[in-house]
Amino acid sequence: MLKNNLFVALIHFPVMNKKNQPIGSALTTIDLHDIARASITFGVSGFYVITPYEDQITLANQVIEHWTKGVGAKLNPFRKDALELIRVTKTFEDAVFSIEQERKEPVVTIATSAEKKKGSIAIESLQQKLADKASHVIVFGTAWGLADELIDTCDFILDPIFGSTGYNHLSVRSAASIYLDRIINGR
Amino acid sequence: MLKNNLFVALIHFPVMNKKNQPIGSALTTIDLHDIARASITFGVSGFYVITPYEDQITLANQVIEHWTKGVGAKLNPFRKDALELIRVTKTFEDAVFSIEQERKEPVVTIATSAEKKKGSIAIESLQQKLADKASHVIVFGTAWGLADELIDTCDFILDPIFGSTGYNHLSVRSAASIYLDRIINGR
Repeated sequence: MLKNNLFVALIHFPVMNKKNQPIGSALTTIDLHDIARASITFGVSGFYVITPYEDQITLANQVIEHWTKGVGAKLNPFRKDALELIRVTKTFEDAVFSIEQERKEPVVTIATSAEKKKGSIAIESLQQKLADKASHVIVFGTAWGLADELIDTCDFILDPIFGSTGYNHLSVRSAASIYLDRIINGR
Repeated sequence: MLKNNLFVALIHFPVMNKKNQPIGSALTTIDLHDIARASITFGVSGFYVITPYEDQITLANQVIEHWTKGVGAKLNPFRKDALELIRVTKTFEDAVFSIEQERKEPVVTIATSAEKKKGSIAIESLQQKLADKASHVIVFGTAWGLADELIDTCDFILDPIFGSTGYNHLSVRSAASIYLDRIINGR
């Protein structure tokens, strides 16, 4: 089931620190690799990396350039294919606007959280929504997760990933991979 | 569905390089974090990190010590809980022996691969096997995956993770996370 109307966004501001305060986080370059590789595996059309900080934008673009146009692209064409999905924007609004411009259809925004939030929807609901003529962007937070001020702007929020132990501190790389597998391969 | 008879192993030798030659790989410390966090989420009883190289064993133990007994343990108790699942051994045989000693029951070894291998079993088959009175260890390869010489010693091999595009180059962090979710949460 290929969903060409599915996008992923990785937020570095506003996210939470462990004291539950909104912050901007630093880029973790392996997030770009892992989430790009999961995105291309599951047919995601674009992976937005969102940071307002100029030096972090430069770093992200250096990583992308190395693997899509530089030596990395020759060394590992599979990595090139994955990292070509990445687009860097300063704000989440810029990412949504970019998807709207590209796809010429409404953009539905879906936040994720490791905590159960009131009114969160199941994977099955999202799968049904994907049949609509709209683009859908699944939003992941770095650090200790998305700040409420960003979640509140999203159309929906997905149920958290539950394991079997109550521990809910997966890496964002693991969480994004599991969510994409659940969305595309059903659950 | 808590499976206290489920273990994970991450192999650094023998694995493949991209020229399809067996090699030993270097430790990627974020593998320890991500796979430990996924392991504790899904109720895995122990996460074996396997490398024959003394300097790599030292590095792995330094990472574990920092997060379970050092400053990291105070800074982030959740990370402490996860990394306490890690045990470092020189060989896969040592890991299997250690599980046998601890659990006093047979150990069933299950390899993973990004390629479809002859006779590979579905997740559902593994889920049924978990009901047996035996311990089960899911084996992941770093670099370009497990070498055949190791796969051939395993009792079973799991079907690969298919996405929706034919791309089969997930990170081992993503693959381990998705496999554990599928095994524990069903598919």
